Amino acid sequence: MESMELIKKLSQISPDKIVLMVMDGLGGLPDPDTGKTELETARTPNLDKLAARGTTGLIDIVGPGITPGSSVGHLSLFGYDPVRYNIGRGALESVGIDFDLEPGDVAARGNFCTVDEKGLVTDRRAGRISTEKCKELSGVLDGITIDNVKAIVRPVKEHRFIVVLRGEKLDPRMGDSDPQQLGVAPKPVEALDPAAKATAGIVKKFIDEARKRLSGHHPANMVLLRGFAERPHFPSMGEIYKLKAAAIALYPMYRGLARLVGMDILDSGKSLEDEFRALENNYSSYDFFFLHVKGTDSAGEDGDFKRKVGVIEELDMALPGLLKLKPDVIIVTGDHSTPALLKAHSWHPVPLLLNSRWCRPDGADNFGESACASGGLGHFHATKIMPLAMAHSLKLTKFGA
Amino acid sequence: MESMELIKKLSQISPDKIVLMVMDGLGGLPDPDTGKTELETARTPNLDKLAARGTTGLIDIVGPGITPGSSVGHLSLFGYDPVRYNIGRGALESVGIDFDLEPGDVAARGNFCTVDEKGLVTDRRAGRISTEKCKELSGVLDGITIDNVKAIVRPVKEHRFIVVLRGEKLDPRMGDSDPQQLGVAPKPVEALDPAAKATAGIVKKFIDEARKRLSGHHPANMVLLRGFAERPHFPSMGEIYKLKAAAIALYPMYRGLARLVGMDILDSGKSLEDEFRALENNYSSYDFFFLHVKGTDSAGEDGDFKRKVGVIEELDMALPGLLKLKPDVIIVTGDHSTPALLKAHSWHPVPLLLNSRWCRPDGADNFGESACASGGLGHFHATKIMPLAMAHSLKLTKFGA
Repeated sequence: MESMELIKKLSQISPDKIVLMVMDGLGGLPDPDTGKTELETARTPNLDKLAARGTTGLIDIVGPGITPGSSVGHLSLFGYDPVRYNIGRGALESVGIDFDLEPGDVAARGNFCTVDEKGLVTDRRAGRISTEKCKELSGVLDGITIDNVKAIVRPVKEHRFIVVLRGEKLDPRMGDSDPQQLGVAPKPVEALDPAAKATAGIVKKFIDEARKRLSGHHPANMVLLRGFAERPHFPSMGEIYKLKAAAIALYPMYRGLARLVGMDILDSGKSLEDEFRALENNYSSYDFFFLHVKGTDSAGEDGDFKRKVGVIEELDMALPGLLKLKPDVIIVTGDHSTPALLKAHSWHPVPLLLNSRWCRPDGADNFGESACASGGLGHFHATKIMPLAMAHSLKLTKFGA
Repeated sequence: MESMELIKKLSQISPDKIVLMVMDGLGGLPDPDTGKTELETARTPNLDKLAARGTTGLIDIVGPGITPGSSVGHLSLFGYDPVRYNIGRGALESVGIDFDLEPGDVAARGNFCTVDEKGLVTDRRAGRISTEKCKELSGVLDGITIDNVKAIVRPVKEHRFIVVLRGEKLDPRMGDSDPQQLGVAPKPVEALDPAAKATAGIVKKFIDEARKRLSGHHPANMVLLRGFAERPHFPSMGEIYKLKAAAIALYPMYRGLARLVGMDILDSGKSLEDEFRALENNYSSYDFFFLHVKGTDSAGEDGDFKRKVGVIEELDMALPGLLKLKPDVIIVTGDHSTPALLKAHSWHPVPLLLNSRWCRPDGADNFGESACASGGLGHFHATKIMPLAMAHSLKLTKFGA
């Protein structure tokens, strides 16, 4: 039996509440001068107290050495093995702008591109047009309807957009039109399965219409499509864990991912303070909260050690408001490491603290990578976080007699 | 290759002897006043010495967050992945009273229940009749013979009994008769596979005969059957490990489990002292001993921290007798945690010590959860205990050239 199946079999409802706080890209590398990581440098009296009274550990998001993207990282935190639970590119782009794909929709990632008078691609990104321009051109294409199938076109950023086909009997098993090289024509979209032939015909007509409508908009005078995909069929957190789960996140990508696994999306405002207020206001209506903090990752990506430290300290200062609610289980961790020294996501395991009245405390007296490395939970896979959260909130029955 | 297959391929006979001491429900949670668990509170000079000269670690019985039942816990300790090696309910109940199911037998869990004059169930447990009454009524049903199939009926406890059908060509693939609700008639037992049709017919006749024989025994005037199962086909410890294995246990359930994996069952007497004497008396005849201590779990389930401490101290005091025999490998651990604070089995990982002349010692100078958390064996799965025991007794050859 697969591990998630077992959890599904054992899960039960209890009154206990779980808060999973994800500081994006939390894990770091030590400043060469001080020997301390961003988390270890930050003054975090509240997190330290939670760690001292709880249990700590280090998590691998995918496996040793594997650097996860943000979607992979979050799926793993929610208990979905990201190697098994895959999101097609078109669906992922839709998730990224929090576009709610409906069952039956077929989505693709699009590029506005430049073609010459012979129709050959001369720039796959149309000179990276502005996001403003992208919005305008998406409007030009949005609503094209072919054989009762409506194309919904939404801007993403610069030359990137999504197109979502909505209609009857659509099938995503089609090849890309993006040739991934210059000097050739866009590829005709081919059905990779006989069942997708009709959909491929619709896509062809959409592309023809797009070419016509964009002809006067040089350099963005054509589109390239790739990664046709439908909304992935994941079992929901409600089905697996019997949780009523809510997500609080300022960035659309994280809301989109949370929606894919069946969480309700709360109005999260515009700041960390707003996020905590959203949690407080909805505290009685859910038994699981995912609260996402973006600033740690952005600072890490920018190589800004100090700013990352500052974001962690900001979160620590906001904690007492949450603690007043007395959640039964609090987990603080990240979806991957983003060491400021690397200016990028990394493979380094991520520190985690779990606080509950049923913890077996370890020696950790602060929340940091070194303390977590010898923590009582050991070094474990992120997909085990949810089983641990469930256990500590008495939401798992005994396995076997 | 599955891990057990590999061990089977590598296992060899050596003169070394292994003792696996299982303190049932050993793992605990700290007393809030002292910060020490039951095991850490107990005065255990002998266990501490074994730990200091050996290696320690923490084990997950099934996986993080999963609370195991006792049968699951022991299978895992013996090296059988409990998610893969499943025991059907009827077989497990038989194991629980140390009833030796033969290949071909079909066993079911039974309830004495109450039905009204229309045959509708009014009490699924017949008012929880006494175990004495259960013995008497089991005698009334025992030996019913239908079409050359004999029904062996044995009391378990209160309203619970087992019925074991013994005969030719029986098939356990049948549904329950227990409707799991009141106000309805018992369900007719249905074959879930065409091959089980004849057996279902026999069960029907058995139930009809039971109804007749019980008609004067209100409130226990009917039976409900569920969990039809045969003896599970596990490879024996002899086949896998080439061990001559013996079990010493005061409770029938643990003897039954040990028998299922091919151990010989020794006469274990009535006390811990008797158990150690049984080990001593049979020391020359076996190369593997499983010695089970029940008191730790019972005390934990009762929420009696002090009594659990006492049982651990009692075992520690009995140890020198065992040490005189100089077993080559001694392992002390539990089949799950039963923290007195929780009054129940729990998911917390279980402390383990392994003592042998081939240990790489760690810093642990005592046997306790905290010391084990940073032990040299790390945090590992219980199914790896047997490979470690085999290796430390030089019973595993090299893998590959």
